[in-house]
Formats: sequence, structure tokens, C-alpha cells
Amino acid sequence: MGTDRSHPAFEFHVGGKIGTEITRPVETRADLSLAYTPGVGLVSEEIAADPSAVWEYTGRGNAVAVVTDGSAVLGLGDLGPEGAMPVMEGKAVLFKHFAGIDAYPICLDAREPDDIISVVKALAPTFGGINLEDISAPRCFEIEGRLAEELDIPVFHDDQHGTAIVSQAALFNAAKLVGKRLEDLSVTIMGIGAAGVAIAKLLMHLGVHDIVGVDRSGSIYKGRKQNMNGQKRWFANRTNPQGIAGGIDDALVDRDVFIGVSGPGLVKPEWIENMSSDAIVFAMANPVPEIMPEEVPANVAVMATGRSDYPNQINNVLAFPGVFRGLLDVRARRVDNDMKVAAARAIAATIPEADLAPELVIPSVFDRAVVPVVAEAVRSVARQKGLARI
Amino acid sequence: MGTDRSHPAFEFHVGGKIGTEITRPVETRADLSLAYTPGVGLVSEEIAADPSAVWEYTGRGNAVAVVTDGSAVLGLGDLGPEGAMPVMEGKAVLFKHFAGIDAYPICLDAREPDDIISVVKALAPTFGGINLEDISAPRCFEIEGRLAEELDIPVFHDDQHGTAIVSQAALFNAAKLVGKRLEDLSVTIMGIGAAGVAIAKLLMHLGVHDIVGVDRSGSIYKGRKQNMNGQKRWFANRTNPQGIAGGIDDALVDRDVFIGVSGPGLVKPEWIENMSSDAIVFAMANPVPEIMPEEVPANVAVMATGRSDYPNQINNVLAFPGVFRGLLDVRARRVDNDMKVAAARAIAATIPEADLAPELVIPSVFDRAVVPVVAEAVRSVARQKGLARI
Repeated sequence: MGTDRSHPAFEFHVGGKIGTEITRPVETRADLSLAYTPGVGLVSEEIAADPSAVWEYTGRGNAVAVVTDGSAVLGLGDLGPEGAMPVMEGKAVLFKHFAGIDAYPICLDAREPDDIISVVKALAPTFGGINLEDISAPRCFEIEGRLAEELDIPVFHDDQHGTAIVSQAALFNAAKLVGKRLEDLSVTIMGIGAAGVAIAKLLMHLGVHDIVGVDRSGSIYKGRKQNMNGQKRWFANRTNPQGIAGGIDDALVDRDVFIGVSGPGLVKPEWIENMSSDAIVFAMANPVPEIMPEEVPANVAVMATGRSDYPNQINNVLAFPGVFRGLLDVRARRVDNDMKVAAARAIAATIPEADLAPELVIPSVFDRAVVPVVAEAVRSVARQKGLARI
Repeated sequence: MGTDRSHPAFEFHVGGKIGTEITRPVETRADLSLAYTPGVGLVSEEIAADPSAVWEYTGRGNAVAVVTDGSAVLGLGDLGPEGAMPVMEGKAVLFKHFAGIDAYPICLDAREPDDIISVVKALAPTFGGINLEDISAPRCFEIEGRLAEELDIPVFHDDQHGTAIVSQAALFNAAKLVGKRLEDLSVTIMGIGAAGVAIAKLLMHLGVHDIVGVDRSGSIYKGRKQNMNGQKRWFANRTNPQGIAGGIDDALVDRDVFIGVSGPGLVKPEWIENMSSDAIVFAMANPVPEIMPEEVPANVAVMATGRSDYPNQINNVLAFPGVFRGLLDVRARRVDNDMKVAAARAIAATIPEADLAPELVIPSVFDRAVVPVVAEAVRSVARQKGLARI
């Protein structure tokens, strides 16, 4: 207990990073008689008579719950709900800063998927969307899947879908840069947790069929016995058409794309050297990537990481603020793959084709052009598909 | 659907009344590296190692959940969770405006006490206190009781305890004004829901033993059969020592105090006339009291209502902001009767004894002196009783 707290992050965090703000004047008795009794009663009765009015007369339409159980906080593991608080507050800060969204950190003392699902369903009337965060795999798949099915507001698990959208955005541009068609790419994904599965699903949705997943037990293939779960069996049945077995070294031979969402320094340069020419390497383990940019051999055409101190930072903040901005703007009932693809294409398109370069396949997290175009892309698909309330 | 929305309350409510506010600078990359990764990870890991650090490095210590199921919204009845939203937002506005507390509206799609209890327990790590609101009786008693027992943060049901504290504050001063000792008072309470039961409990805690409760079936006495529930049986076994039966008219004969938390216009002047001399009448039904101030006969020495347009407004906003300010300031583990009494005494004491008058037994809701003294009273008791973390 009580380790060194001299790092400036501690001083920065005293009292937390997010609070509430009153958005209407409440200085006078007349104000209060509107904000609270008796005026508020008219609005409440109207909403009870016409529930759709809740979107107009409350903050629900701009409110997102950032929900976690603290079971997989950043790359740090199970820190519990209290340990997760600073991260969820940080997420709420990013929602507000980048997209003007009122996001509320909700750190749950609950672990069973059934319990988490019950709690989030109960909370739903208060929010226009649910952002699940840092919930460990494979529990996160069941939780997100069932909530998405049972609620009529969007449920987005950022560790899955945010990561998938942004890496897909980078991949759109990287493929274009090296002149390979997306559908033809052979892709090896290392780390088959929340992010790895979601990345693979989005690639499949886009017609990429040659995907191989690798976890700490090696390649995932149909019939593998060790270290499996329901999600990995699902994965094994839909990927690895050539039945590649062995370790990550085997799974990289002649491949076009490596996407790492695993751990620090797990990939050696000589394995990357066995990839195809003009290889694309997204080593996204944070803070230390699977392989450092300095180490990649000459056959690598595009290199990206999750780090801010190297080019091509693949960071979820490029996706979730704009995605939720769009979803909330149209009071969307759900978020689907087509919206995720549209968001990825919108992010990719913020870099003009003429500017694409090995060190520029993804915009900066500080590029304020990103959120509006992502939001517009999501709104547009939501409306086309009849998933928008307005 | 879609009734008249021309009342200014609707325009006032467009977009809701409360949002989030970032409380730390996040303009630069350096800021973001503290607010989010990688800096935030150090803080999260520290909290995981020493959970008490959550109070220092997150907003938990200033955060209150305003939780409802929408089953008893104001006096309007069951408006559902969406219908309750404007009221919970209003409450959050009052928390912020009067006490600087970050209160989050949480409107639950849940009705079974077990379900509501499970949800609130799961939410607890995020908050420093729970304010239950507008949950119907008798469910509210079980929900509040079990949560208070099972959580190590304060659980306060404002409809019960806020009302009890403020009416008790007024009663302290009214009794002083008419020269009667509190313990000697005979008190008739009309309306044995959340507020009526809590008012009676606080009176009993203060040594008042001659309490009679009246509901729509008349006086509540030991052995009554009609219209009972667990809470009313509890009430019947502990009140009405003389076994008074009959209607409200019978229950008012020779009584010192009438406290109404029932419905509009239910009490006739001639019944009040049968009360003792220097009678005290708190007709708190809102917006229309049990009897209007103009109607009370000459034996009434002190008259109070819940209305802002008459003297002596008994309004919960005199209690809950200061109570929670005090609880949060010391990171209290619970709120108890002694704190509630201390809060009531502090509210009463804001009116100097020399200023007490029939039309001044309770301070204005706009008296900024109230919150600090209530908070200090609560802090002091919490520390004395070992219920404070700091």
C-alpha cells in the first residue's frame, strides 16, 4: 500500500477529472420553479404520456454510460472497479473534449455476465448509448452481444469496435499505398481477445477471407484442443482456410499484414522478414509494441503502433467520439458493422490520397476534422438502414 | 401523445439541465498523457493496490447517484424511469447549485426491490453516496434498509429522510416558540408513506412517544385489519399508545401537532379547531396543502406548508445538499439518526432565537448559511461516532 506517488499523474488526478455542470440558469426562484417543482412536473408528466419526449427534454440524448467491471483495465489486467475509475473518467473526458458528449463513468461491482447485463439494462433509460470498456474476454462478447440484442440504444464495446474501426481505417490507407486490394490481403492477427476478434470480424465483413489468428498457444485452427473457449472455436471455424499450425513465426510466412494486439516485444525481426514484400505491420500492444519501429526489416512498407511518439498512431480516440456523436445525433437504436466500416472509411479519407505516405496512413488524434466526418458517416448509414429515430 | 407544450418549463428543459464538465486541462498532448494513457495507468494501479486511494484520485468523493425507478415521482405517481428523468436532473442541479456536489441522475428500468438493490450495489464503487428518490412505499423501506446495511457508503432516501429532517427542524423551532417541550408533544401524522414513516421514526428517536398515524383508512392502531402492510404493522405496534381509532377528525382532538404528507384539501378547519391551543400545523402536501394557511382557525400558533408563496416553506432542499456535503467531506460510511437530528438542529439554529416568529420557524431555501452549518453538523457526528473515513 502507498507506493511512490511523485509522478505528476497523481497530482493531476486529485479530486478526479470529471464532474457535473448545470446547463440551465438556476439563480432565481423563477428558474428553480422551472428546473424543479412545480415546472418540472409538467415535463415529467408529458414524458410519461409520450416517452419519445425524453429525448427532447432531458440530457438522455447526449448521455453515454462508460461501463466497466474493471476486469481488463488498459493492458494492466484486473484492477477492479475502483482501480478502473481513473480510466473511465479519462474516457469521459475524451468524450466531452472531442465530441461534446456527456459520458458518465460507471464502475461496477459485478462480474457475472448475467449480472452486468441486468445492471446495464436497468440503467438504459438514462442513456442514449452504452460504451462498454475494459471488460475481459471472452465475457465481453456475451455481454455486448446480449445487450446489443436486448436494448434499443447502441451498445459499443470500445476495446473491440473502437480498435477495429481505427486499425481498419489505417489498413484501408496502407493497402491503397502498397497497391494491394483489401479482399486479397492475407492477415495474421496476434492476440485473440476483445480487439483481435473484433478486428477479424470487421475484416470478414469487408470480404477478407485469409485471416489467421495467433494466441499464446500458437495459430488457431479448426480442431485445435488446447487453450480454447467459445469465442476461439467460433474464430477457428471461420478463419485460417489453409489450416496453418505452429507459432507466430510460422503464421507470418508470406503474409501481407500483421496486426498485433498482444504483448510487448513478442515478435522478432526475422519473422517479419519472412512476410511478403510491402508488408504492413500494425504492432499495437501498449505501451510497448510487439516489435519496435526501429527493428522492422526493409520489407515492411507501412508500420503503425499505438504510441504517440511514433508516426501512425492507431488510437481509439479517432473513432469512439465521432461514432457516438453520430449515433446520438440521430438517436440511433443500434450500431452495426456498416456504420463501423463507414466510420473507418471516413477516418481514412481525412488524409487526401496525394498525402498518403508510409508514415501517414492515419490522422493525428488532434485532427479536429475527424469527429465531424465520422459522425456524419455514422448518421448517414443509420438513416439509410432505418436505425435512426430522427 | 403530444399535449400542450407551451408552458415555459418545456422550452427550459430542451436538451436537459445537467451535463458533464472536465475539471482538468486536456488541451495538450502532455495533458492527455496524464488524463489518459499512459499516466492514468499509474493511478489506476495505485488504486488497485490501495483501494482507499480512489477517494483521493477520482471524483468518487464528490459523486452522488440520484437513483429512482420512477414509481412515485413527486406527487404525480408512477411516471416510469423516463418520466422521472427531468426530476432527477433537477435534483442533480440542486445538488450542484447548493452544495457543489456532482450528482448523476440514474433512472432505472427495474421494479423488484431485489433488482433495484442489486443494481445499486453494483453501482456503489463509482459513488460516495446514494440518494434514493421517488421510489414508492412500502418498497422504498426495504430497498433503503437493505442497501444501508450492505453498502459502506451512505444511503439516503430523500423522500423519507430529507422530509423528516426539514419538518423536524421546523418543529424544533415551533415547539420552542409555543413553549412546549418536544417530548411532551402529541403529534398526528397524516399520510403513512415514505415521508410519514420517516418523520415518525425521527420523532421517536427524539423521545416523542405520543404519535398517531392516519391514512385513507383512518387512524393506524395495533390490530387494525384493513389496508395494512409490513411497514404499517411496524408503525401500529410502536405508535398510538391510547389506541385512537376513527378518522382524521378523531385523530386531531386535543393534539398539539398536525403533520400532513398526504393530499390536497383533506383537512377541514373545524377539525383543526379541535386541536390544542397553540397548535402547530405543517400541511405539506404539494402543491396543494391539506389545509390552506388562510383557512386555519385561531388556535393555530404556527402554520407551515411546502409552498414557496407562503411563509415557513418546508422544503427538502434545506437538508439534502448540506447532509451530503457533510457525508462526502468525511467520506462517511453511513448516515444515521443522530446525523439527521444534528442536521435538523443546525437548520433550526440558523434562525436566532430572538427572530423566531409564527411566520419564521424555518429558513428560506435561498439562505446560503444553511448548507455549511448542516454539513458541519453531519461531519461532526460522523467523526464522533467513528463513521467517518477521514
